[in-house]
Amino acid sequence: MERILLGHGSGGKLMYQLIREYFVPKFGMKALNDSAVLAGLNKGKMAFTTDSYVVSPIFFPGGNIGELAVYGTVNDLSMVGARPLYLTTGLILEEGFPLADLKRILISMSAAAEKAGVKIVAGDTKVVNKGKADGIFINTSGVGVIASGVDISPLKVKPSDKVILSGPVGNHGISIIAERNGLTFNPPVVSDTAPLSGLVGKMLRKTKKIHAMRDPTRGGLATTLKEIALDSGYCIMLEEEAIPVPPGVRGACELLGLDPLYVANEGILIAIVSDEAADTVLRVMKADPVGREARIVGEVQKTPSGMVLLKTAIGGTRIVEMLSGDQLPRIC
Amino acid sequence: MERILLGHGSGGKLMYQLIREYFVPKFGMKALNDSAVLAGLNKGKMAFTTDSYVVSPIFFPGGNIGELAVYGTVNDLSMVGARPLYLTTGLILEEGFPLADLKRILISMSAAAEKAGVKIVAGDTKVVNKGKADGIFINTSGVGVIASGVDISPLKVKPSDKVILSGPVGNHGISIIAERNGLTFNPPVVSDTAPLSGLVGKMLRKTKKIHAMRDPTRGGLATTLKEIALDSGYCIMLEEEAIPVPPGVRGACELLGLDPLYVANEGILIAIVSDEAADTVLRVMKADPVGREARIVGEVQKTPSGMVLLKTAIGGTRIVEMLSGDQLPRIC
Repeated sequence: MERILLGHGSGGKLMYQLIREYFVPKFGMKALNDSAVLAGLNKGKMAFTTDSYVVSPIFFPGGNIGELAVYGTVNDLSMVGARPLYLTTGLILEEGFPLADLKRILISMSAAAEKAGVKIVAGDTKVVNKGKADGIFINTSGVGVIASGVDISPLKVKPSDKVILSGPVGNHGISIIAERNGLTFNPPVVSDTAPLSGLVGKMLRKTKKIHAMRDPTRGGLATTLKEIALDSGYCIMLEEEAIPVPPGVRGACELLGLDPLYVANEGILIAIVSDEAADTVLRVMKADPVGREARIVGEVQKTPSGMVLLKTAIGGTRIVEMLSGDQLPRIC
Repeated sequence: MERILLGHGSGGKLMYQLIREYFVPKFGMKALNDSAVLAGLNKGKMAFTTDSYVVSPIFFPGGNIGELAVYGTVNDLSMVGARPLYLTTGLILEEGFPLADLKRILISMSAAAEKAGVKIVAGDTKVVNKGKADGIFINTSGVGVIASGVDISPLKVKPSDKVILSGPVGNHGISIIAERNGLTFNPPVVSDTAPLSGLVGKMLRKTKKIHAMRDPTRGGLATTLKEIALDSGYCIMLEEEAIPVPPGVRGACELLGLDPLYVANEGILIAIVSDEAADTVLRVMKADPVGREARIVGEVQKTPSGMVLLKTAIGGTRIVEMLSGDQLPRIC
């Protein structure tokens, strides 16, 4: 089996061949420039983001580190209302990493970019000695344009706003834990990794009254909403019964002692939307395959400031805090 | 000593505190958004680049991984004639990494960004288990704007163009090898890591007749020129005696059996400039501290196509190839 050598990262002939053979054709690049030169963006605002992916294992039910790296960064751009346009990718490879796995990952990055409507325009590859990394780490950075009139920020959140969740929680995190520990659940749990750019585009074409958006990845729904509550200074009141938890996720969480509200997701979003626009947004979301299970799961209240509260199924109210400690390391 | 925990990367409270305490103040950020929202760029072309830094050791004579990560990406943007504006940074930390080292690195990233005239606008932090990375890896990605009329590409290189080198070769690579192996050289060898954005700005304000530019990092001057020769289809003829090799670098290379033309640099550039503009460009470069040792080291010839030739000091001619294998892994 062909494997990555230290020389693949030394800037010499081996790296030149690797790039020519693997990257240039798969990403549709024409040349090897360190920097991509791009047509200017429009005069509106732009968004710029970065994320490194260290997920373990690199192949998991429903996806792999490559498409996760593309969708994750596309989604970060989407969450500020940007239309994602261009990505870069920086690979850190461990000496000895199988070239066949690299090829498989690059192919799925290329397919994911096409699905999400973005171009991968520049890349970088480093190789570290065996034992100094864990197979492959991928950074993706992205830029996008924000249409005029779009202004999404937790600071715009107001009391009476509705909290819309686009789909069920916990699938990504549980799929990773299952693969890591050799568990299978019935029904099987598959990562929800998906691009949210199409869905968000439709939502923003319908209304500009989307105040805040976030994809609840690391830390899960709970941590993400707590951050929004802190940034906005208002309270988010959730209805536990409204939050969809798939049976496989619920079963796995019970078995493993996890709370689905803290499990990572990779293909859902939370939108905090003005009361009068909520029904319209919900309708648009349900018409898109990625948002077909969208529903209102809570609303914003004036007080208690900075808190997330959960009305439980049995009629109590629970305080929801951020994730503490390391429930699920290397989930993305 | 305080150290990085797995929980610092889990998206929860520890990470929130780490970002609030370390990143937000040092990079002058106001909030914690995954994506930075930026004012639109002008209507001209833009450049977009990425690089991951895995240099070992992370602290070395003349610099550290943090400033290297800022300058390296600034320089990649500069090499296509862009004015660097914004950077993102993605950190991969190994569990147990000392927080004091992280702080020192972030402070020097912040200082480097200021020196290079760029803003670090978004970041990401991942933590992997002890033994699954090597302390710290840093990705930086950057965007910049390209002034109208600037068009820098190896495809524009023409016979009779002059090859200008901005400073002496080999300092970065030898400083890393020295630190890695506990060697000291006399005179001491210190990394040349520096931002080239100021120098390039001055060159481009003076003339648009700069055809190609590259910073000869991994693979050194030889590999970089060979890539330009291949891309342009012409021959680059170098004068060995014109290429400045500092005494410490020369001594170290003799001792270690290295060729200074293949040793990595982090603060010099090669500009391939039309014959009639060469003297003007050289004058501008020599007036800048980063380019004060600039000189013409060769010229472009029609044939033999795609080759780099070196006229040696003793009157012979040597074929210069790309770096083969892994002379110096983890140099940047």
